[in-house]
Amino acid sequence: MERTVFNSSHSKEEIQPLRYLSRAEAGAIEKDLVEEFRFGPQQLIEIWGHACATAVTKVFPRRSLLKKQPTLLVVCGCEQNGAIGLACARHLRVFEYEPTIFYPKRSSNALYRDFTTQCEKMDIPFLSYLPTEVQLISDAYNLVVDAILGVEATPGEVLEPYGTILATLKQIQIPLVRWDVETGSSDGISPDVLVSLVAPKQCATRFMGKHHLVAGRFLPYDLQKKFELNLPEYPGTDCVVSL
Amino acid sequence: MERTVFNSSHSKEEIQPLRYLSRAEAGAIEKDLVEEFRFGPQQLIEIWGHACATAVTKVFPRRSLLKKQPTLLVVCGCEQNGAIGLACARHLRVFEYEPTIFYPKRSSNALYRDFTTQCEKMDIPFLSYLPTEVQLISDAYNLVVDAILGVEATPGEVLEPYGTILATLKQIQIPLVRWDVETGSSDGISPDVLVSLVAPKQCATRFMGKHHLVAGRFLPYDLQKKFELNLPEYPGTDCVVSL
Repeated sequence: MERTVFNSSHSKEEIQPLRYLSRAEAGAIEKDLVEEFRFGPQQLIEIWGHACATAVTKVFPRRSLLKKQPTLLVVCGCEQNGAIGLACARHLRVFEYEPTIFYPKRSSNALYRDFTTQCEKMDIPFLSYLPTEVQLISDAYNLVVDAILGVEATPGEVLEPYGTILATLKQIQIPLVRWDVETGSSDGISPDVLVSLVAPKQCATRFMGKHHLVAGRFLPYDLQKKFELNLPEYPGTDCVVSL
Repeated sequence: MERTVFNSSHSKEEIQPLRYLSRAEAGAIEKDLVEEFRFGPQQLIEIWGHACATAVTKVFPRRSLLKKQPTLLVVCGCEQNGAIGLACARHLRVFEYEPTIFYPKRSSNALYRDFTTQCEKMDIPFLSYLPTEVQLISDAYNLVVDAILGVEATPGEVLEPYGTILATLKQIQIPLVRWDVETGSSDGISPDVLVSLVAPKQCATRFMGKHHLVAGRFLPYDLQKKFELNLPEYPGTDCVVSL
């Protein structure tokens, strides 16, 4: 699955096509990052959460928001993707947005609990339930960050309460941000902003929204080469780049 | 110890003086971050290493360097400060500098070992010894990042091999970057760039160099208020700000 974009800064001579990773390749990169390069889960969640918050800030600067208050809703699943959502919400708070978190099923994983505590101690509100009346969500928030699913999701299988939540999110009229997750099947939600956490996955070829960003700057060059990622050049010290 | 600068974005009405933390206060903030807010050591090292690399990039953009190659030397101690140096070197590599690391005494701490592996696997060279002939250092590198000491250093006491290394660094003619460490005594090194990792420490009032930056954007607002930090406003999504 290939599409021609600007090539990596390491091979300026010829345009190389950006690659869209399969589910297996995405898993293999994460395995290499953890096992070979010894990146820690806490470190990766922090890097990705920060990058997602930066992506939101880039696409929706506070002055561009339609509502008076810079309110955002971050919906978090119980696995790693949800923890990235928690870190993203915290960084959005630091960037002076007003995030609210909906985290219906809390993980017992100590690492994820710590990311939760950081948000709670920073006085980020947590919703006890998600309104099923979508208008209430659209009225209260400028946008929704959907951090429910992750690469760990079983293809095609969405357990409750997430099925119901996704059915609600499918109807909202405000912009929806999510990171690309190669679950093997589409849930019918069409995000406005897609953030590819390491490199674009194959599901990103079905993306119909306006803003596709990649957040893989931290990725060691040897891994970029091994998986022939041909990532675009990141400007300055930016951790995300628009495709 | 106070100095008037721009005040925090949270109290725009009146100028509040920036505070310079005592050693005890700096320790108390870090304790709160870890124990109350549940920030993890891996997470903090990653945040601080990234912020230091961003500070170096801000003060010394690659196009401003005098040497043809964007070479930098990062000297790392064996405690947390050294690990921040390792993370800083890795991010500088990602920002397309050419860091070399001198890490004379490796820690047996598994967390610090992982940060070392990340650098090794990214092909960042490690020096086996530091030339005592300072001209060799000045010829080879554009600048030195000194990540030897940390807040954990015993006041006034510098153990070998760091005493000898600091004596060498004292003589170099190229710019030296370090973060502020409240050791209770000065080692006579006068850095050109000072990065305050959370908020400025009292030792920063003795800083005679040109560039003083603060890297405390991630700090929860409640802690900023509790310790009356009155941190300056950070532009955009920047993690550092010049004072």
